[in-house]
Amino acid sequence: MPDAKRYEVLFQPDDVAVRVAEGTPLARAAHEAGLPLELPCGGMGQCGQCQVELLRGAGEPDQTELKHLTPHQIGKHVRLACQQKVCGDLTVLLGDQVRSRGNQIMVGSETRATSLDSGVERLEVALGQAPLTDERDDWSRLQEALGRSLQPSLPALRGLPEALRDGDGRLTLTILDGVCRRIEPGAAGGAPLGFAVDIGTTTVVVYLIDLATGAELATAAMLNPQVAYGDDVIARIHFAGVEERGLAMLNREVRRAIDELLRTACAEAGVPPERVARGTVVGNATMTHLFCGINPRGLGLAPFAPIVHNSVTTTAADFGLRAAPEAEVTVLPNIAGFLGSDTVGVLLAAMPSPSATCLAVDIGTNGEIVLHHDGRWYGCSAAAGPAFEGARIGIGMRGAAGAISRIDLNGGGDIDLVVIGNQAPRGLCGSGLLDGLAALLNSGALDYTGRLAANGQVAGALANRLSGDGPERRFLLADAEQSATGEPLHLTAGDIREVQLAKGSIRASIEALLARGGVTTDEVEAVYLAGGFGSFLRVESAIRIGLLPPFDPARVKPVGNAAGAGARLALMSRAEMARAEELALAVEVLYLATDPVYQMQFMEQMVFPEHVGQ
Amino acid sequence: MPDAKRYEVLFQPDDVAVRVAEGTPLARAAHEAGLPLELPCGGMGQCGQCQVELLRGAGEPDQTELKHLTPHQIGKHVRLACQQKVCGDLTVLLGDQVRSRGNQIMVGSETRATSLDSGVERLEVALGQAPLTDERDDWSRLQEALGRSLQPSLPALRGLPEALRDGDGRLTLTILDGVCRRIEPGAAGGAPLGFAVDIGTTTVVVYLIDLATGAELATAAMLNPQVAYGDDVIARIHFAGVEERGLAMLNREVRRAIDELLRTACAEAGVPPERVARGTVVGNATMTHLFCGINPRGLGLAPFAPIVHNSVTTTAADFGLRAAPEAEVTVLPNIAGFLGSDTVGVLLAAMPSPSATCLAVDIGTNGEIVLHHDGRWYGCSAAAGPAFEGARIGIGMRGAAGAISRIDLNGGGDIDLVVIGNQAPRGLCGSGLLDGLAALLNSGALDYTGRLAANGQVAGALANRLSGDGPERRFLLADAEQSATGEPLHLTAGDIREVQLAKGSIRASIEALLARGGVTTDEVEAVYLAGGFGSFLRVESAIRIGLLPPFDPARVKPVGNAAGAGARLALMSRAEMARAEELALAVEVLYLATDPVYQMQFMEQMVFPEHVGQ
Repeated sequence: MPDAKRYEVLFQPDDVAVRVAEGTPLARAAHEAGLPLELPCGGMGQCGQCQVELLRGAGEPDQTELKHLTPHQIGKHVRLACQQKVCGDLTVLLGDQVRSRGNQIMVGSETRATSLDSGVERLEVALGQAPLTDERDDWSRLQEALGRSLQPSLPALRGLPEALRDGDGRLTLTILDGVCRRIEPGAAGGAPLGFAVDIGTTTVVVYLIDLATGAELATAAMLNPQVAYGDDVIARIHFAGVEERGLAMLNREVRRAIDELLRTACAEAGVPPERVARGTVVGNATMTHLFCGINPRGLGLAPFAPIVHNSVTTTAADFGLRAAPEAEVTVLPNIAGFLGSDTVGVLLAAMPSPSATCLAVDIGTNGEIVLHHDGRWYGCSAAAGPAFEGARIGIGMRGAAGAISRIDLNGGGDIDLVVIGNQAPRGLCGSGLLDGLAALLNSGALDYTGRLAANGQVAGALANRLSGDGPERRFLLADAEQSATGEPLHLTAGDIREVQLAKGSIRASIEALLARGGVTTDEVEAVYLAGGFGSFLRVESAIRIGLLPPFDPARVKPVGNAAGAGARLALMSRAEMARAEELALAVEVLYLATDPVYQMQFMEQMVFPEHVGQ
Repeated sequence: MPDAKRYEVLFQPDDVAVRVAEGTPLARAAHEAGLPLELPCGGMGQCGQCQVELLRGAGEPDQTELKHLTPHQIGKHVRLACQQKVCGDLTVLLGDQVRSRGNQIMVGSETRATSLDSGVERLEVALGQAPLTDERDDWSRLQEALGRSLQPSLPALRGLPEALRDGDGRLTLTILDGVCRRIEPGAAGGAPLGFAVDIGTTTVVVYLIDLATGAELATAAMLNPQVAYGDDVIARIHFAGVEERGLAMLNREVRRAIDELLRTACAEAGVPPERVARGTVVGNATMTHLFCGINPRGLGLAPFAPIVHNSVTTTAADFGLRAAPEAEVTVLPNIAGFLGSDTVGVLLAAMPSPSATCLAVDIGTNGEIVLHHDGRWYGCSAAAGPAFEGARIGIGMRGAAGAISRIDLNGGGDIDLVVIGNQAPRGLCGSGLLDGLAALLNSGALDYTGRLAANGQVAGALANRLSGDGPERRFLLADAEQSATGEPLHLTAGDIREVQLAKGSIRASIEALLARGGVTTDEVEAVYLAGGFGSFLRVESAIRIGLLPPFDPARVKPVGNAAGAGARLALMSRAEMARAEELALAVEVLYLATDPVYQMQFMEQMVFPEHVGQ
């Protein structure tokens, strides 16, 4: 929009102003002002939670806003930040409840043990100004003092004159794969540091690692700021390809986010960022292409090929990470366009060299699934939609404070809710959604086709929770008094349809992989569930609604953020990095669009099992 | 000078203004305004040629200016740009005659043949958008189309999406040592290019080479802009160490100069700078340290050690060369602090693997001398002063138009001058100075101690050219009518003293090397004279005044800018680059400050030989 008018938006009480083009949503303006908002539905106008008050310049509410706001709110100039467009100079009041709560992102995972061999060393060496009798170059003297041959980088050489002058006869070297990258005066102390990054479509996590011990010193996470430009990879690919400077903007956003997270993690651990010598990055192929500044156009068009599947290594400075510009950063390899280095990370963390038949399942907006059987690997990616991440669900939200994460219906139709943070519920996250549908199926309030029971089909307390007709039919989870929002919280027929689409796609892709490998459900000895949703879901509920085949629940293991764990392993050990390269090449990719098993199963799996374990 | 006042200097007729600190010489202000001046004496106030007219704000002339300017000129506000300091807002008129004439720098040299093996390739490959049936990554398809395995650089990957879209099914790759550095759409054509740089203390030369044929496409040269901050390496080392941001300023000046020269050379050859894939750089250690941004402090203090003698390789972008940021640039190795990569270049060009006993002599402000004998190498560097480059000589100038380059005295005392450009003489360059002293020695007008003959000691026309007494004694080369400046041109007793110091040092260092190698003058089978002065001097005159030992003149060969020729060889062939590394390590360095032969010979060689060939 080169010719668009620009207006000033002033945010209060921060007193921060930003100039944006006409038509920019308020949520993006807030983001550009450095005040990111919590957008549970990804800014799609579905959750109605990004409510802000316009102190000056409020426009008319659109249809979406009218749906979420009361006449009283509209009269008080309350609007939805994701819907309201900038059409003039504005002043906006941001309440605490709409601000991004990046610190509630689930980042944990167990990392299996590996032998530390990061290729990074930090050494102290005794060396001062040359004595008058020694006319050799300083680098030769340094190698002699060190007792070994060493290549210098240009930044290391630039640091040497001052280090010789100011070091009191001692220097500290940071060495990476036999090349000295940095020289500091004196006995600077401290272990060499590394960082591992997991760039998710929704969240970015940075892990700071002590490369001498493998200890995790700090973790920092935030919403991926690219969310302001589109909530899924397709929207980002489109933005990068169509908007003027779109690629550069998305590239800058993610680089800045990682740079900031790295600084935050270093500050938290009380270590200087300059001591960071190596980094690894995983993400889906669109995220890593955008991070590398490579146009992901090809990932949005058939045959959905990435530009490169190899790992890519260069300096942090080349990647625009200014916190530790001399560090060397490697983006792990992809398997294919929709099986990115995040999946390689999951495999590296959960099943690097398995002998058993096992399955890794990582459910996000896409479900990436890899089967190992009889020494061969099969992988695919299913478009699931963001239902399990809380988007496109009326009261959906991510797994943050206030989210209903567990639902049980007792025999009498009473409902037991578990809410994250032990507070009044604000919405429903993926694991609660799964539980809710399982409980409704078990109670008979939901039939296998996905239809909520009609009046008279269920009795008592349960019947009282059902209301509305046809597509408006809904099930009450919490009434206005119980709810933190003051509005009743419902699960709707539309929500159930979204889950059916998502689970149908994921289940069909699991079936397609099992068919390709010639494996039955019972033959699968271990199932690793990666990611936040996979870690929190109740396995029995996932099986009840048919998201997973009827595995023995004892064989299903949540592995947390295994993509990030894989990035940490590849950071700590060059052998693990080499294994990642092998894994990326080893996986045979199933293209679901042309897979007959998937096509058949997708329709079949849209319905729910009539009984547990079907 | 953080607290200095700043004033505006406006240069006419260019109408270019610059703000500089109080006390800045006008010559530096002109340089900072992008209008470099010709400073034949290096801005030392000795030649009086940098005359400018101050249209506004002229200050009082100082003693140096009074010496060079007539009262009429002073009344017309004519001043010397190297002496006049900025003390207020000024307007300055720059005539054509004071502007830098960088294009008169002597850059030529013969390059011996070498097998072309630069490691740089430019290949066309047929590859378009992926067909719908091919889900592999684009890089894998590219390697298959090429029929070989290839590593990608990040910039190459960034270029691939657009090249696939816009290339009409063809791409052009630039490959360097097996890594693809650049991808262009279509059959871009054209050979891969490289550049070789010789960073002299006074001049910078860039050679543009076709790496497919070895042809020299263009040469561009200019005065080293660092001259504005000091005319010799000691002054630059001091400036880098003492001035706030001095290192950064000197680094920027030389990077910008090379960047500009590379653009100029590409424009002259009609080729795009982006096609440049590799570069090599030689220079003395101070010049290469400054280019690398490494503080050369250690080169100014005993034991005069460089930070590094190895070659240093990184991207042109890292070196701040923006013309071809993706090119890989290698600074050739040093031998020692005062035997830089320029000397390695001379050895590579003139005697890469000699069987005979031979000597390389490169006379500039320092004289770098290397002897090969019996499979061993000996080298040293003599501080000569800039006399042979025309500085610290009353009428001295570089070998540009108007310089007296040859002097003959006939029997009757008449004088024959050869002037560069066949015009009226303006001054005297190194080769003319050598000839003049040789002629004076032969005529008896100069005795072996360096004293000009007294009245009565010589007769006739010769006697008429001598005037003045004691330190004011002088010899007339051209009277006011013959001279282009309207002032008579004299060779003075002081000039002769400068030559005695310079030639004494260089000759003594040659003797010290021969003594170390156990070689007599007659055993030296070849003497290679490198550099502009070495190429233009009359060998007989150099021997007559004792600058060179009495070699058989037939064995003495000028080799032009051999340092630059060595850089070109290392650019064109990786074997030559490897040879440069070997040569840098092979040379045994004599430290003249502690060498007894040098110490003794220095005093002895200050006097002139009484007879030819002594």
